[in-house]
Amino acid sequence: MKINTLSLQKRFIAIRENKIFETFVIIVIIVSALVIGAKTYRISENVLTIFKILDLSITLIFLTEIIIRMIAESSLKGFFTKGWNVFDFIIVVASLIPMENSEAVLLGRLLRVFRVLRLISIIPELRVLLSAFVTAIPRMGYVSLLMFIIFYIYAAVGSMFFHNINPELWSNISISMLTLFRVATFEDWTDVMYETMEIYPLSWIFYLSFIFVVAFVFLNMMIGIVLETLQQEHEKMNREDGTGEAGEVHRIELRTIDMEKRMDSMQKLLQQIAKQTNIR
Amino acid sequence: MKINTLSLQKRFIAIRENKIFETFVIIVIIVSALVIGAKTYRISENVLTIFKILDLSITLIFLTEIIIRMIAESSLKGFFTKGWNVFDFIIVVASLIPMENSEAVLLGRLLRVFRVLRLISIIPELRVLLSAFVTAIPRMGYVSLLMFIIFYIYAAVGSMFFHNINPELWSNISISMLTLFRVATFEDWTDVMYETMEIYPLSWIFYLSFIFVVAFVFLNMMIGIVLETLQQEHEKMNREDGTGEAGEVHRIELRTIDMEKRMDSMQKLLQQIAKQTNIR
Amino acid sequence: MKINTLSLQKRFIAIRENKIFETFVIIVIIVSALVIGAKTYRISENVLTIFKILDLSITLIFLTEIIIRMIAESSLKGFFTKGWNVFDFIIVVASLIPMENSEAVLLGRLLRVFRVLRLISIIPELRVLLSAFVTAIPRMGYVSLLMFIIFYIYAAVGSMFFHNINPELWSNISISMLTLFRVATFEDWTDVMYETMEIYPLSWIFYLSFIFVVAFVFLNMMIGIVLETLQQEHEKMNREDGTGEAGEVHRIELRTIDMEKRMDSMQKLLQQIAKQTNIR
Amino acid sequence: MKINTLSLQKRFIAIRENKIFETFVIIVIIVSALVIGAKTYRISENVLTIFKILDLSITLIFLTEIIIRMIAESSLKGFFTKGWNVFDFIIVVASLIPMENSEAVLLGRLLRVFRVLRLISIIPELRVLLSAFVTAIPRMGYVSLLMFIIFYIYAAVGSMFFHNINPELWSNISISMLTLFRVATFEDWTDVMYETMEIYPLSWIFYLSFIFVVAFVFLNMMIGIVLETLQQEHEKMNREDGTGEAGEVHRIELRTIDMEKRMDSMQKLLQQIAKQTNIR
Repeated sequence: MKINTLSLQKRFIAIRENKIFETFVIIVIIVSALVIGAKTYRISENVLTIFKILDLSITLIFLTEIIIRMIAESSLKGFFTKGWNVFDFIIVVASLIPMENSEAVLLGRLLRVFRVLRLISIIPELRVLLSAFVTAIPRMGYVSLLMFIIFYIYAAVGSMFFHNINPELWSNISISMLTLFRVATFEDWTDVMYETMEIYPLSWIFYLSFIFVVAFVFLNMMIGIVLETLQQEHEKMNREDGTGEAGEVHRIELRTIDMEKRMDSMQKLLQQIAKQTNIR
Repeated sequence: MKINTLSLQKRFIAIRENKIFETFVIIVIIVSALVIGAKTYRISENVLTIFKILDLSITLIFLTEIIIRMIAESSLKGFFTKGWNVFDFIIVVASLIPMENSEAVLLGRLLRVFRVLRLISIIPELRVLLSAFVTAIPRMGYVSLLMFIIFYIYAAVGSMFFHNINPELWSNISISMLTLFRVATFEDWTDVMYETMEIYPLSWIFYLSFIFVVAFVFLNMMIGIVLETLQQEHEKMNREDGTGEAGEVHRIELRTIDMEKRMDSMQKLLQQIAKQTNIR
Repeated sequence: MKINTLSLQKRFIAIRENKIFETFVIIVIIVSALVIGAKTYRISENVLTIFKILDLSITLIFLTEIIIRMIAESSLKGFFTKGWNVFDFIIVVASLIPMENSEAVLLGRLLRVFRVLRLISIIPELRVLLSAFVTAIPRMGYVSLLMFIIFYIYAAVGSMFFHNINPELWSNISISMLTLFRVATFEDWTDVMYETMEIYPLSWIFYLSFIFVVAFVFLNMMIGIVLETLQQEHEKMNREDGTGEAGEVHRIELRTIDMEKRMDSMQKLLQQIAKQTNIR
Repeated sequence: MKINTLSLQKRFIAIRENKIFETFVIIVIIVSALVIGAKTYRISENVLTIFKILDLSITLIFLTEIIIRMIAESSLKGFFTKGWNVFDFIIVVASLIPMENSEAVLLGRLLRVFRVLRLISIIPELRVLLSAFVTAIPRMGYVSLLMFIIFYIYAAVGSMFFHNINPELWSNISISMLTLFRVATFEDWTDVMYETMEIYPLSWIFYLSFIFVVAFVFLNMMIGIVLETLQQEHEKMNREDGTGEAGEVHRIELRTIDMEKRMDSMQKLLQQIAKQTNIR
């Protein structure tokens, strides 16, 4: 029996590694995405029945695929240590939950939408991109915290002074923060300002200072993340390829290390010769 | 006869290379552009007749020019292997199609508009710029794909939940994607949000998360393309000119290679001397 | 008595350096921020009483903390030479001022809002960030001055020509500057333009030139500050860590210095050997 | 007599170089700017009389100053070869033109506004900034040309198809270009799009492609100019100061040049020694 399970695992690994199998899964994900999109249009009953069958088939294929990958892995623990496996597992299991009443139907459809995300986990290039984004975010954590503090203070001051002028925009701190986000995107922000300037003529200072501070911090954060990530990737790639300035600098360093070693041996030889010629 | 065709080809090459001929073609393109622009104004019948004659002349000049360039080329196959020649050929041929009925007249005028694009193919600097843009786009293909996936998922969720609130904005996935593009450009996006927040008070999470993700990915893509292209051009130019930091680094590398060679020969000499002094 | 005060100071330094004490102060600041936020909601009388007690406690804790830090410092003068101490002192003292009449109550609440800023002064990473921002601003002072001059000239021209068209937007130079800031943020700027184009059809030149100049100078200022700051930090970090291109270049320089010294001694040895071999 | 004019010129050079004189001129420019600003407010007749006297005094001071600088210069030709002198001369002379009728009064006031620009020509740092901007623009000339071609083609197509839908936005090519600029700034662009989508449902392709192309080219141009200028200044400064990576690289190059020379002499010495030891 043991030989049987082993050969089964080997076969499953072969399936997982198979290019045709991978392409098939990608096509199923795209079909799944198209079904999700098509459902947002008005469709006849007949087509809806086809979609239901398609949906069930997709669910079963996804389930089969994840089981194959689980068996192909040496151990279940090994399967779950990889982040992308957990990501896929949650998406597949979430879309398994059966829904009956109308409320849950919407949730069920919502969970099916996330199956499109499997496109990211299956295409290596997208996986790399998303990893780069995710790893870049925490580095800018303190900038985000600073931005949140700025929003919080301005929102507190805003709702303190303006909540009687327009309660819809300034009634409490959370609504004020949303209003300030609107101001930060320049969306009809002058309407908000002109309204409060009728009672507080100097309130333009509040808005202009806010726009300057936020634009500055936000741009800093955004450009900062992008440039840091790009520069690091660029340098890493250059060093590996040996191209560009970084590649040349790297070669120069290796060469100077070699030159120092040669000099060391030359110095020793010279001292030896000097001794020899001196003795005689 | 063969000598005749050869001399004809030589003469045509001479014409093609002629600076005056090139300037003449540029002037014709600009006149063509001005005619296209002038036609959008209300013009009297007399002027329209002049424009028709002008248009015909321009078409003939363009046709003559492309035939000259085709003959000047060693072979027809050689002519069509160059992308810019194909580009010019399509533009010229497309504006040749005769139009009679009113529908086709609009198409005919549309095809004539693209003659302005010949300005790009004839000015080398613009050609370089466009080539740089075109080569930069595919490199960012996966980022575009990621962005499309994000739009698709948000559009699916949006039309799922909001299609009863405002069918004009959320009735199906393609209209939802257009609405989301509008939100991404901050164009009256709060009107869209406030509308859905009346039924789903937490829908601001949908919009804010979308804005953050898209702004981040979009800025990444844009700044990424620009910086990569600029940096590569900058380094390449520096290495060729020998100016700037990259130029210095390049010279340093050449010098260290030379130094290593000298050291090698010096080491050999030293070892020889050491042997000589030891023997005696 | 002297020993007593000394031991007291030592104990206070111990408190100041204590991690638990620091965490406690951070929690108090966050509670203070939450109280400020909660007050913007409609709250019952009972909760308001609790908030008043909380507010008093926070004020007392802050007062105690700053006194501890003042005593822990070797001298009062030493305490006030550090910018962040002055920053904290002003915030704490400002929220001490007792308020009775309704007008001052608003001011009192406003001053309490700034206690959230103590989060910046207590978290070292935020302190570094703010310092970086503050030091970056003056460097761009002249760019800001240039931008102000541009706004001033355009506002003078605008109010000169357009003050009869729409006094609400162009009645005097300060209102015109606010209108121009609105145009710079693209907020309903075409409404402003179409209005003046009815009397001065060429006024689009005024708006378009303004947008180009401001966008150019503003982007310059913003991207300039961000990039300069980032680059300097990056290079500094790289040199310290010895990683990246800057780290490699630094090591190469150290190595070339060493190589030159070795060469110097080798040359001397060689000259000595040459003399020796020549003499005999 | 010759000695007199010479000593007069020397005295005028002394005045021009005088710090107090410079500060005085700066104050006069600022006063001039304030008067221009103040005039946009409603002012009483009395104040207006004071302003008229002030204006005359400022004109006279500016005239005196420019005459002093002209005499201080060795020759009149030498004075006009410097761009900033011509700049100042035009501003001063333009504000001399006497105005009588109401039409010219507005022009006269407009010319006086440009006196604020003298602030740029008198403060060296602002002069450097403006020079940097002016020199950066032509380098991006071809990108601007490309952008103009894109606008022209889209405007031609737009006015061709949409001029019957909304003549106010699309009646001819110049109005269409203004409308497209509005679309490029995202200012109520969806209103423009929804209007044309009622007749041409696929016209969203027109707008979206335009936004992508323009955003891409525009960002390229802007970021390109800024980065190029910054990088060049940065490298130049670093090389002069000898700080940063560029400074280190420069020192390394100087050192490698020196090392090669030493190696050359060492090699010669070695060959000589080798010969010597071989002979014997």
